[in-house]
Amino acid sequence: MLRSVLLSLVVVGALQAQEQGRPRARDLGVPFDGAPGPLNAITDVSGVLVGHTTLIEGHGADAIRTGVTAVLPRAELGLFPAATYVLNGDAELSGAIFAEEFGWLRSPLMLTGTASNGTVYTAVIKWSARRFPDRPVHMPVVADTWDAELSDYLAFPVTEEHVFAALDGARSGPVPEGSVGGGTGMFCHDLKAGIGTSSRVLPAEQGAYTVGVLVQTNYGARDELRIAGVPVGRELTTPLPEFREAPAKQAGDEQAGEEQAGDEQREGRSVIVVVATDAPLSPLTLKALARRATLGLARNGATASPYSGDIVIAFSTMEFEWVEDTPERLRTETVWPYEMGPLFTATIQATEEAVINSLVAAQVMTGLNGSTVHALDHGELQDVLRRYNRLEESAPKLR
Amino acid sequence: MLRSVLLSLVVVGALQAQEQGRPRARDLGVPFDGAPGPLNAITDVSGVLVGHTTLIEGHGADAIRTGVTAVLPRAELGLFPAATYVLNGDAELSGAIFAEEFGWLRSPLMLTGTASNGTVYTAVIKWSARRFPDRPVHMPVVADTWDAELSDYLAFPVTEEHVFAALDGARSGPVPEGSVGGGTGMFCHDLKAGIGTSSRVLPAEQGAYTVGVLVQTNYGARDELRIAGVPVGRELTTPLPEFREAPAKQAGDEQAGEEQAGDEQREGRSVIVVVATDAPLSPLTLKALARRATLGLARNGATASPYSGDIVIAFSTMEFEWVEDTPERLRTETVWPYEMGPLFTATIQATEEAVINSLVAAQVMTGLNGSTVHALDHGELQDVLRRYNRLEESAPKLR
Amino acid sequence: MLRSVLLSLVVVGALQAQEQGRPRARDLGVPFDGAPGPLNAITDVSGVLVGHTTLIEGHGADAIRTGVTAVLPRAELGLFPAATYVLNGDAELSGAIFAEEFGWLRSPLMLTGTASNGTVYTAVIKWSARRFPDRPVHMPVVADTWDAELSDYLAFPVTEEHVFAALDGARSGPVPEGSVGGGTGMFCHDLKAGIGTSSRVLPAEQGAYTVGVLVQTNYGARDELRIAGVPVGRELTTPLPEFREAPAKQAGDEQAGEEQAGDEQREGRSVIVVVATDAPLSPLTLKALARRATLGLARNGATASPYSGDIVIAFSTMEFEWVEDTPERLRTETVWPYEMGPLFTATIQATEEAVINSLVAAQVMTGLNGSTVHALDHGELQDVLRRYNRLEESAPKLR
Amino acid sequence: MLRSVLLSLVVVGALQAQEQGRPRARDLGVPFDGAPGPLNAITDVSGVLVGHTTLIEGHGADAIRTGVTAVLPRAELGLFPAATYVLNGDAELSGAIFAEEFGWLRSPLMLTGTASNGTVYTAVIKWSARRFPDRPVHMPVVADTWDAELSDYLAFPVTEEHVFAALDGARSGPVPEGSVGGGTGMFCHDLKAGIGTSSRVLPAEQGAYTVGVLVQTNYGARDELRIAGVPVGRELTTPLPEFREAPAKQAGDEQAGEEQAGDEQREGRSVIVVVATDAPLSPLTLKALARRATLGLARNGATASPYSGDIVIAFSTMEFEWVEDTPERLRTETVWPYEMGPLFTATIQATEEAVINSLVAAQVMTGLNGSTVHALDHGELQDVLRRYNRLEESAPKLR
Repeated sequence: MLRSVLLSLVVVGALQAQEQGRPRARDLGVPFDGAPGPLNAITDVSGVLVGHTTLIEGHGADAIRTGVTAVLPRAELGLFPAATYVLNGDAELSGAIFAEEFGWLRSPLMLTGTASNGTVYTAVIKWSARRFPDRPVHMPVVADTWDAELSDYLAFPVTEEHVFAALDGARSGPVPEGSVGGGTGMFCHDLKAGIGTSSRVLPAEQGAYTVGVLVQTNYGARDELRIAGVPVGRELTTPLPEFREAPAKQAGDEQAGEEQAGDEQREGRSVIVVVATDAPLSPLTLKALARRATLGLARNGATASPYSGDIVIAFSTMEFEWVEDTPERLRTETVWPYEMGPLFTATIQATEEAVINSLVAAQVMTGLNGSTVHALDHGELQDVLRRYNRLEESAPKLR
Repeated sequence: MLRSVLLSLVVVGALQAQEQGRPRARDLGVPFDGAPGPLNAITDVSGVLVGHTTLIEGHGADAIRTGVTAVLPRAELGLFPAATYVLNGDAELSGAIFAEEFGWLRSPLMLTGTASNGTVYTAVIKWSARRFPDRPVHMPVVADTWDAELSDYLAFPVTEEHVFAALDGARSGPVPEGSVGGGTGMFCHDLKAGIGTSSRVLPAEQGAYTVGVLVQTNYGARDELRIAGVPVGRELTTPLPEFREAPAKQAGDEQAGEEQAGDEQREGRSVIVVVATDAPLSPLTLKALARRATLGLARNGATASPYSGDIVIAFSTMEFEWVEDTPERLRTETVWPYEMGPLFTATIQATEEAVINSLVAAQVMTGLNGSTVHALDHGELQDVLRRYNRLEESAPKLR
Repeated sequence: MLRSVLLSLVVVGALQAQEQGRPRARDLGVPFDGAPGPLNAITDVSGVLVGHTTLIEGHGADAIRTGVTAVLPRAELGLFPAATYVLNGDAELSGAIFAEEFGWLRSPLMLTGTASNGTVYTAVIKWSARRFPDRPVHMPVVADTWDAELSDYLAFPVTEEHVFAALDGARSGPVPEGSVGGGTGMFCHDLKAGIGTSSRVLPAEQGAYTVGVLVQTNYGARDELRIAGVPVGRELTTPLPEFREAPAKQAGDEQAGEEQAGDEQREGRSVIVVVATDAPLSPLTLKALARRATLGLARNGATASPYSGDIVIAFSTMEFEWVEDTPERLRTETVWPYEMGPLFTATIQATEEAVINSLVAAQVMTGLNGSTVHALDHGELQDVLRRYNRLEESAPKLR
Repeated sequence: MLRSVLLSLVVVGALQAQEQGRPRARDLGVPFDGAPGPLNAITDVSGVLVGHTTLIEGHGADAIRTGVTAVLPRAELGLFPAATYVLNGDAELSGAIFAEEFGWLRSPLMLTGTASNGTVYTAVIKWSARRFPDRPVHMPVVADTWDAELSDYLAFPVTEEHVFAALDGARSGPVPEGSVGGGTGMFCHDLKAGIGTSSRVLPAEQGAYTVGVLVQTNYGARDELRIAGVPVGRELTTPLPEFREAPAKQAGDEQAGEEQAGDEQREGRSVIVVVATDAPLSPLTLKALARRATLGLARNGATASPYSGDIVIAFSTMEFEWVEDTPERLRTETVWPYEMGPLFTATIQATEEAVINSLVAAQVMTGLNGSTVHALDHGELQDVLRRYNRLEESAPKLR
């Protein structure tokens, strides 16, 4: 009870932060290509809902910094064309085999932290059985990234109620970013990160389609970070994360290989990219779209570490149409594959911006055993971009 | 407490059944090709352990007929070359993306029933963290098939303790078959089925390797069943399963498509095939081996229904060898790919026999709402094979 | 000039053989499941055309026993949904990457013998440029199997004219089988084989769709052969092939590994399966269909040797529909994936029968260096099936 | 005869151009990360050979601007671990199915222009049969990109002799770049391009391995081009290519969809990336490496147009080791997958630089029907980089 009250407070707090006008990357004058939608968020794709449950509780050895994010193509769900792509497979993604076979999505998309996959999986089945009692059970789609540096994952803090809250709280409108939902305990390029989002709207002569992207960022070394092509990571003076291990763990007797793994693991972890569009696309054109998201990651300097679960899930909100006949058929349309270019570009651009948004939104966080991850300094970012002639002239002066 | 006592009784009971000499397919005179190992089981592959937790509880609307099976390549686990293959992807298999990327298996293989994946997933992480406290957490490998005709899956009866019991109880030696472990509530070709196993040993001039197969069978229409090439399914007089729905559910207001789905779903469901071998194989030669298992299924008449999750997981018990150097390396060997033929044939043969063993071992079961699935009649099977000149002459006369 | 006259004679000869009523497998009383179309051939799928160029020339070291087969979804070609599947990849299939990306077929499907792929590839481009001057060039789809035991492949006997002849001669109606076209120099289960075809028609309540299969068979050891579930291969008295090498080659100084390869290569080679249907299918449902073809091969005993290029190409003749808009779109329908079961079964059955048809149609052939491959004896086949109670009662008595 | 003399002249000319000190990208002051090898070329990987045949003949409607490039892992070839990756599959790559199945490369890698694949395929078989008479024939690996804007591809100008010349002329040492070999008629970001190469050497504590990359570049719109993160493409004043069609073709009666395709096709075409390394890698770690190459492309602004055949082929020169036993085995090592990070980064960096090298090396070219593609102006490139504070201070002043 206490916990769910805390939870509500956290969620509301995060929403307020954004509503109170916390700046996003382009507010700082970071230049991006292409035209965003009104919210510059995945929810610009009509019908798409996002819900977060954020768990920030306890300190020291008991610190919990994790959560759950739910993305629904539509409140009533349905049968949406979908595809997945794996850039590096140190990853779990339930529902992937199903999407590969049938090319569709029938479940909400869930993003969470280390080792919560099982709980989220079970909870989505229960939620679906209650919400849609006449439908057969469908395989939940759950992905996670590693937040065990800041959060005690072996406490298994995410409960089924947290999952229900993220699902029931999913809504259209602005999307909280940074240390919220599944992104709560994440960091990227050694800066606090988490959830980020962005969108692009194509001009009428290219179909006026919207592409929306939501990312959960948790990868990259500091010096790899590029913003708007500028090698920002090398110039920042923000301290690197300070990780502290529990006394017991420090004395651990690990294998050589695993030990070294520990260090690298901090640099090279994971990213989940959700791409939504109202363009009519088939599983194959969506698969092509999903691959493009990784080109957006690369523009920011991503190298896809071997420790990464780098996963893309793409879906179209143009549902399959049902044809009553013997046997029944599905009717569908796709943008002519050779005219996918503008959608590819939009996906790359929105992914590039969503990642930077996740960095701009997040604030310094102290978690497990007092480990601390610092945040991107907005003023310093502007300074660096200015030195490379890449700050928008209209940018507000922060210092 | 009561539950775990019941559980133990069930496990012990199943073991006794086999130990007391319940016949297997070749005991009945069914002809199979190739030479099996001493146990004719996956445990003929040295080091491999199998554990079952079987849940047979309650009646009517409360009937539970499900369970968990654990397959461990070695008690201490390790880093085993592995590959997966999906014949039809109406399936969930956690760990599949990981295996595709790295080509190895670090976790036990878990087989269970509908919707227990999440619980099993979480439990394996907890078990691993406790059993191997100095190792990083690894993604569990969990697959399920659909037992909701006989078992109330929305009761989520499988608990973490059940999973621990299957893991802790895993052992070498004879493997209980039929309605045990993950296979408890399964049926195949409209006959009660579940877990089956078989093995093949190659002659010395082909390397003296062992291939072991364990299946969880839950697919196929009656008239599709072929045994030893004989169209047995069409000749059997065993009644078809009698399925009964709960009153509430019968009145359900489902969509047209989903309704018809219900009927077909009963014929065409899933199979999980685990292939183990002590032959040194690479992820690529294991992938080729995994594909061959489906040719064994086909010999028994499998058509891989669209409702199927038809999944194969293959691994070698010849661990990667660690080379301490900068950077560290893995050394491995594989049978020269062009000499894989005998291993392919062995896999096909062992899969073919394991499926039939799952049918021969299972006994009639009554479960959810009184639904009943009948068992293969051993005497009638012999009669049919005899009519087609395919019963081994040495077969014992059952009637 | 002389060559092209010879060629015509050969083509006409093959056609006459079939028209003169040479029996096919079911004419001999081999039992098969399902209802074939009027021709029991891939050309039962409306619009599909097949053309063969057969090269049987020379003797001894100069023997040529090869050819080209062309399959066209429609005379005017177009944009057909398509998918490929590889059971074993010791294979070449141009156009496969393209089909994987776009899910369609714009070119004729070409089947040929060892090392003719390049010539066929170039010739198809030339033919297409001439036949459809206003269309951009499309990637040809060319597959081959290994006929170098009977034919001097290093003479590169297939010319562009031969390819044009197969394409220009493609027609609907009965399809010549056995040692014709790409199948001229092939053998299967150590019996002369080549091209085979079969079809199935679904009942009205399953959509009345037709599935047609054409195979080029070149795989399998003798004792693996099963026909109608009966272990025919072990019972046949037909001599094994007699292979003779050129004197020079016998003295060759080969590597150990390659030498052994030579022997196995004779047992385990390749099969190409073309599946055509008039059912409206998407690239994903076609991919599922393609995988089912391999279950049909398995019923005849195929083990998919490591030396095999076991390839399936499946297409629907229900073209994508073009939607003029901005941007342009493709509209398509697919049978509801969960109702694909009857189409899967039809594909398995037609593949099973097409392979046996390739064996029944072929006659003994002597080729390179006097190597000889014997043919299946129709009378002995009937005898064996009769012993296993699997010969149709209506079968004509051959001896 | 005359042709082969011309050919030799062209090849020699290209070599002289580089030997005479034509600058490469880093000579101009373009900043790149990581340490290149002595040649900054794929040939820094010990044993790797590259050969080009360049065809620049005729004018107007008869212009030929094409060629062939051969990359050999080692002069004697052998059995090298290999993998392929397809970013966009409007592509042909023979040998890809084989590499996917077995994870190795036994043939030279051939890069060529539109529609020459067939000829190159046949020629490689002939060359291999002559060069290695005791080895069985292996499937050639041939990829092409589209040079039909500058070259009359329907003249099929590449002959088998041209292919032999590229293979026989393959050598270590500096690699000619720009309009040579398979890259002769290619352009990239609307600038003349073709072949480019680069390498990286890891420090001793990361294994001292070398990664070499060779690209054939033929993709991208002008305004997409980024160099060292700077949006160079938008700032260049170099005219766009001037394409002229043959009178007959202008009057062509094409389908609407195809017409529009024509325009886009010019912006969005293809790239082939060959990645070589002396690090011991398995097919799976090579597959991961191949995917990283596309992140290098992305850094330069690549969006992977739907018209692209964007293909990566990666191989290790650490051959499989043969173990004589029964059955024979292959022994191999791979860098521990979790230590692949530095190799990933090296691949990304070398790919990024190789593409820019292809632009820097190429000079303006006039080809088919007088169509002209202009070259990157070195001085203007420096100006633009300087404006963005991204020109190396040590750069020579060109204007």
